[in-house]
Amino acid sequence: MKLQFWFEFASTYSYPAVMRAERAAAARGVALEWRPFLLGPLFHAQQGLKDSPFNAFPVKGAYMWRDLERVCEKHGLPFNRPHRFPQNGLNAARITLSLEQAERPAFVKAVYQANFVHDRDISDPQILHAAARRAGLDPLETLNALRSETLKQTLRTETGMAADLGVFGAPTFITPDGELFWGNDRLEDALDWAVAGTLRPHTQN
Amino acid sequence: MKLQFWFEFASTYSYPAVMRAERAAAARGVALEWRPFLLGPLFHAQQGLKDSPFNAFPVKGAYMWRDLERVCEKHGLPFNRPHRFPQNGLNAARITLSLEQAERPAFVKAVYQANFVHDRDISDPQILHAAARRAGLDPLETLNALRSETLKQTLRTETGMAADLGVFGAPTFITPDGELFWGNDRLEDALDWAVAGTLRPHTQN
Repeated sequence: MKLQFWFEFASTYSYPAVMRAERAAAARGVALEWRPFLLGPLFHAQQGLKDSPFNAFPVKGAYMWRDLERVCEKHGLPFNRPHRFPQNGLNAARITLSLEQAERPAFVKAVYQANFVHDRDISDPQILHAAARRAGLDPLETLNALRSETLKQTLRTETGMAADLGVFGAPTFITPDGELFWGNDRLEDALDWAVAGTLRPHTQN
Repeated sequence: MKLQFWFEFASTYSYPAVMRAERAAAARGVALEWRPFLLGPLFHAQQGLKDSPFNAFPVKGAYMWRDLERVCEKHGLPFNRPHRFPQNGLNAARITLSLEQAERPAFVKAVYQANFVHDRDISDPQILHAAARRAGLDPLETLNALRSETLKQTLRTETGMAADLGVFGAPTFITPDGELFWGNDRLEDALDWAVAGTLRPHTQN
């Protein structure tokens, strides 16, 4: 069983999803396909937005920051509201695309922690260098990705593919039979669907 | 323990929340305060929208209808996609405000079922008449609300209060200590918070 996991490095709710995904997937025997993309072009094309909706609409932003705080606490995840939002995830996304699937989770998690725990600038090659090292990768080799024209194009293609699949936010999960689930709080539903082709009935309590 | 439950009759995700709320609240000993409001003026004031975001942004609408179908199936709720969307919930909201809290759930549920199960026009006094009867109310007396200037003003005041509280969507739950939770999928979190002033830790599986 496989589940596509589309995420954007600037996306706030992608942070808890990224930190929780491996364990939740392993518990169900589902293999995750980690696929970074850029949300900015989609927001612009689909909704005419030039900034995150959380900045464009302050009432939604205020809610999101508080909700994210609660969600992280619920899941036992450290969280510090970053000073920069949204950050530029372009470099991190290109690097991720240069990695094998098996190498991606550790690097991706290190970058999200740099953003949402340590308040670092994740477009900065030095920060990405440190994330690569923490992920057990060769940092210099990893940063070569930033010079690759091919990876630049790959990221464009991936972002276009996300749009074609109906993605409009992050994180988004897509099952092999084409069901799309949007949001950190749909992670478990998406995994259940990947396994069974349906959702587990809700245990009401 | 009390929880404010803000809903809009046109709102799709308010349907599963309305159908699930009583049971989930009773299980935790929480009393719900059923508070209808109008989302249209808030969408306009906060986001410049003149239509539901699900119509304004088709990619979000397509997702929402499929997701709602899945959510209803998960919770064992009948669902038929209505031909009219969004419906005009003004009359239903005014009537609800004329009712005692204890009378509201049955009437509100009957109206949501008229919309999301039986595809009826919920602005139609005849449909509201039938909903009142199904809810065990005196239908003629109930429909008097539609002629009340006071209730017209009450609905305006309530909608303004929702905006002041930070509401930007429906359903929204607000705890006595001012925590706001948005969405059908936050019902349980909101109830847990109303009881304990915090969230129950997530049981990862």
